[in-house]
Amino acid sequence: MKGQGVQTIEPEMEPARRCVRTGDLVLLVGSDRKTAIVRMQPARQYQTHHGVLNHDAVIGIPWGSSVDTHLGYSYMVLPPSLDQLIRDVQRATQIIYPKEIGYMLMKMNIGPGSTVLEAGTGSGALTLALARMVQPDGHVFSYEVRADMKALAEKNLARVGLDRFVTFRLRDIDEGFDEEGLDAAFLDVREPWLYLSQVHQALRGGGFLGSLLPTVNQVGVLLRNLAMHPFGFTEVEELLLRPYKAVAERLRPVDRMVAHTGYMIFSRALLGEPLLEPE
Amino acid sequence: MKGQGVQTIEPEMEPARRCVRTGDLVLLVGSDRKTAIVRMQPARQYQTHHGVLNHDAVIGIPWGSSVDTHLGYSYMVLPPSLDQLIRDVQRATQIIYPKEIGYMLMKMNIGPGSTVLEAGTGSGALTLALARMVQPDGHVFSYEVRADMKALAEKNLARVGLDRFVTFRLRDIDEGFDEEGLDAAFLDVREPWLYLSQVHQALRGGGFLGSLLPTVNQVGVLLRNLAMHPFGFTEVEELLLRPYKAVAERLRPVDRMVAHTGYMIFSRALLGEPLLEPE
Amino acid sequence: MKGQGVQTIEPEMEPARRCVRTGDLVLLVGSDRKTAIVRMQPARQYQTHHGVLNHDAVIGIPWGSSVDTHLGYSYMVLPPSLDQLIRDVQRATQIIYPKEIGYMLMKMNIGPGSTVLEAGTGSGALTLALARMVQPDGHVFSYEVRADMKALAEKNLARVGLDRFVTFRLRDIDEGFDEEGLDAAFLDVREPWLYLSQVHQALRGGGFLGSLLPTVNQVGVLLRNLAMHPFGFTEVEELLLRPYKAVAERLRPVDRMVAHTGYMIFSRALLGEPLLEPE
Amino acid sequence: MKGQGVQTIEPEMEPARRCVRTGDLVLLVGSDRKTAIVRMQPARQYQTHHGVLNHDAVIGIPWGSSVDTHLGYSYMVLPPSLDQLIRDVQRATQIIYPKEIGYMLMKMNIGPGSTVLEAGTGSGALTLALARMVQPDGHVFSYEVRADMKALAEKNLARVGLDRFVTFRLRDIDEGFDEEGLDAAFLDVREPWLYLSQVHQALRGGGFLGSLLPTVNQVGVLLRNLAMHPFGFTEVEELLLRPYKAVAERLRPVDRMVAHTGYMIFSRALLGEPLLEPE
Repeated sequence: MKGQGVQTIEPEMEPARRCVRTGDLVLLVGSDRKTAIVRMQPARQYQTHHGVLNHDAVIGIPWGSSVDTHLGYSYMVLPPSLDQLIRDVQRATQIIYPKEIGYMLMKMNIGPGSTVLEAGTGSGALTLALARMVQPDGHVFSYEVRADMKALAEKNLARVGLDRFVTFRLRDIDEGFDEEGLDAAFLDVREPWLYLSQVHQALRGGGFLGSLLPTVNQVGVLLRNLAMHPFGFTEVEELLLRPYKAVAERLRPVDRMVAHTGYMIFSRALLGEPLLEPE
Repeated sequence: MKGQGVQTIEPEMEPARRCVRTGDLVLLVGSDRKTAIVRMQPARQYQTHHGVLNHDAVIGIPWGSSVDTHLGYSYMVLPPSLDQLIRDVQRATQIIYPKEIGYMLMKMNIGPGSTVLEAGTGSGALTLALARMVQPDGHVFSYEVRADMKALAEKNLARVGLDRFVTFRLRDIDEGFDEEGLDAAFLDVREPWLYLSQVHQALRGGGFLGSLLPTVNQVGVLLRNLAMHPFGFTEVEELLLRPYKAVAERLRPVDRMVAHTGYMIFSRALLGEPLLEPE
Repeated sequence: MKGQGVQTIEPEMEPARRCVRTGDLVLLVGSDRKTAIVRMQPARQYQTHHGVLNHDAVIGIPWGSSVDTHLGYSYMVLPPSLDQLIRDVQRATQIIYPKEIGYMLMKMNIGPGSTVLEAGTGSGALTLALARMVQPDGHVFSYEVRADMKALAEKNLARVGLDRFVTFRLRDIDEGFDEEGLDAAFLDVREPWLYLSQVHQALRGGGFLGSLLPTVNQVGVLLRNLAMHPFGFTEVEELLLRPYKAVAERLRPVDRMVAHTGYMIFSRALLGEPLLEPE
Repeated sequence: MKGQGVQTIEPEMEPARRCVRTGDLVLLVGSDRKTAIVRMQPARQYQTHHGVLNHDAVIGIPWGSSVDTHLGYSYMVLPPSLDQLIRDVQRATQIIYPKEIGYMLMKMNIGPGSTVLEAGTGSGALTLALARMVQPDGHVFSYEVRADMKALAEKNLARVGLDRFVTFRLRDIDEGFDEEGLDAAFLDVREPWLYLSQVHQALRGGGFLGSLLPTVNQVGVLLRNLAMHPFGFTEVEELLLRPYKAVAERLRPVDRMVAHTGYMIFSRALLGEPLLEPE
């Protein structure tokens, strides 16, 4: 089972991974398409409108099968996707959605081993995605000025077992960040332009800055301020996601869609001027 | 520097990471905005229209700074993003673009530790993104029927140092896959519906299937065939990426954009019927 | 007031047009942004939640001013746009929306003097737009198989005073159309491909065929059938309308938008084969 | 052939309209899909790469048929659409495209009988569309500060026989307009906010103002200025047109599309304050 001449590291396929284990996060889907994400723990119960589901009845069964409540109502048992985990975050604020998160990870080169700054933490939806992606060797440093939000995000991350990849800090980021030499920084605050010096200080040379802003006015102010700091290669983009009705005989987009979440801005921390000729 | 009460694993910040090291992939950007991605190796030279750049002159300088050719032409020295690495892949086929890749990673829960099937390999652009994201503990199994494409993809992956996370197989996938219990499978072939049994066999229960198809006709056929196999929770979506001119005083979308790359289809391998009431 | 050397026909500006006259359609807008379109008739009353508005209090006042109910609630008095008239149509079916109608008029060359076929009539929203645009010398021939829909459309057209530009026919269009030599035909039926021979018979050579279909499957069947009839230069397009929050300080798209109304298909009736080389 | 009980005015169908007549604008389409729009005049010739086409060979033949050059190359003979006429305008400036024009006509209630102001004239593409739509009883007043542009637009309008519905004026619109009581005004200038008083003066109460602006900055300034003048019910929208490959077996959007032409802004001239409660 080796590639021809390529030295590859193939993982052992654990048979155990085929079945739900204690501590696993499980996506339960009822036949009414209602979903819940629950961490399986021995002797616990999950209460539904359709009866009680014992965690012990779920632990040990194969992923992709179904299980019944005491009233005989069936739930499909699936591993949740990162998309679903993000949507399931208990939120007190507007969260950043998967369509932007996935693209930003690519543009900001965030993956296993990355060290990432986030400000502010908010409900922790983006924090969760970042923690999932930088593990096991990377780390997320997440700053938040509101203690209640920080507590909520910590709870949300602990719930999915990703809190150990995150350092939460309660801080007015105007005072700056504790880290230096980070790979990437995401500013999820209303006025990111106020913190460009601090962020530059925290990033390594060539590090990635990202932000998501709802209004064109904010984009304009951020662009003007980026031009006054040693950042360069700035890009502004937006993503439109159009879902379809997945019916072969009547295939068509759904009637309504999200028209806007925000404008994505990407930039790179430089050690000098960008040295670019005008376009 | 600890989070309050949260047991976190903070990485040592290596000062060395601030500077280009031997073996690093470097994005060079000239003042004419032309870019190249080059792996730094002692005593090597990079030939440009603007003169010769000695790798030894780049190794050791801080990321984000600039370096001159023997003719005095400056290049910015930056770490490449995954987006840029993918666009830089030497290609013999249409490749899947970052806007879809990032989103598909989220929807298919692909990240560190994931085991992923890919068919076909093609030029290896998606392979590269998958390998980058599943490391260090996950793995990609990539199947291709054409020996020349497989060789090209291997070269593309070796170039960026990610080949050890991939097992390449030369195979008509009609014969099935060697693996079982995989987390996710991506079918990047013209007629993915022909291989649904084989893919189901390779996926663990609840595993994720993804595909990207250019025509509505293909989407229709895939939907019809998914309905005849133990897959469920099928979704069809498309993403439109709209870039802007990043000029604060004249902020506006660019004149032209990509109108279409493909329709994304996502589905889940089940062990039984989906058990869903009709919507 | 003449153009230099160009023989132009300038209309007399009637001062009377500045004020609301008997018989005018008036758009009333309350300060709660609720709107109504009402035809002004002497001695009539318009009942609102905010009191009674006498038509006689509106007749004679200048357009663009406001008028009060007997309870002192103010309404702005505006001429309705075609967009607003269409949205105000009393409907029993899905209607075609202004974003598509305006574009289709351009593509199908429908304007003053055009003779246009429509099947089916439905609630008459498109009929209204066509009648508005072909007047005073053009005409709309509108076919409908359901008597109740025909009656509703006639009422909707009479209400806005455009019924004299339309001939309504109660007919199963499988039997064909009474007209010949028409400029354009719009098929707003589920299976337009069943009537291509009949439509070709009704159109003059080079005449325009238009249709709006919700699913890709319908588009595919129509394309296949158009290829088997003397039609050519077929185009398929869709329009996405994105509204913004019109606030200067926080300019941004609204949160949600219509993702899909239908695919527009345009084609031309030919007297022979299209004679085109393959693209 | 009368509608049941509805007093309709049906036009005589002129058999002559089936055939090309002297003076008609003809769209010629070669088998290589190259097109030209030519006005037919006796004894004239149309020179092509594929030979000479005598106008007299076209005059009298049925629309929708084809005709050969002296070298035996065939051209289809079709009536041009308004869309095609606009695209064929000889241009010296960026023109407004049909996707926006059609929608703006609907939103600004421009149709037969409308009196419309346009500033500036530019190449006359929008002028042409307006003239086509307001005839025979309406009129377009088009202002332009550059004599060469005015001359070009006059030539473009004369070419399609629509110049008699337009009064062209050479004027710096800062000085105001000669007309009053107009139904609608379209400002196609870089800084439309400079002329809001003048436009308000030219419009009747409730009249429609429209503008198309490329940058968000311009939209912001216009919105701020509209709020300081007696205008109301302002809307900002954009339209995205996505063309498809019209092939039944491989139906899909084309690869690239226009990402942006401009933001459409619509507003209404009022005689007092808008009197609206905040949203």
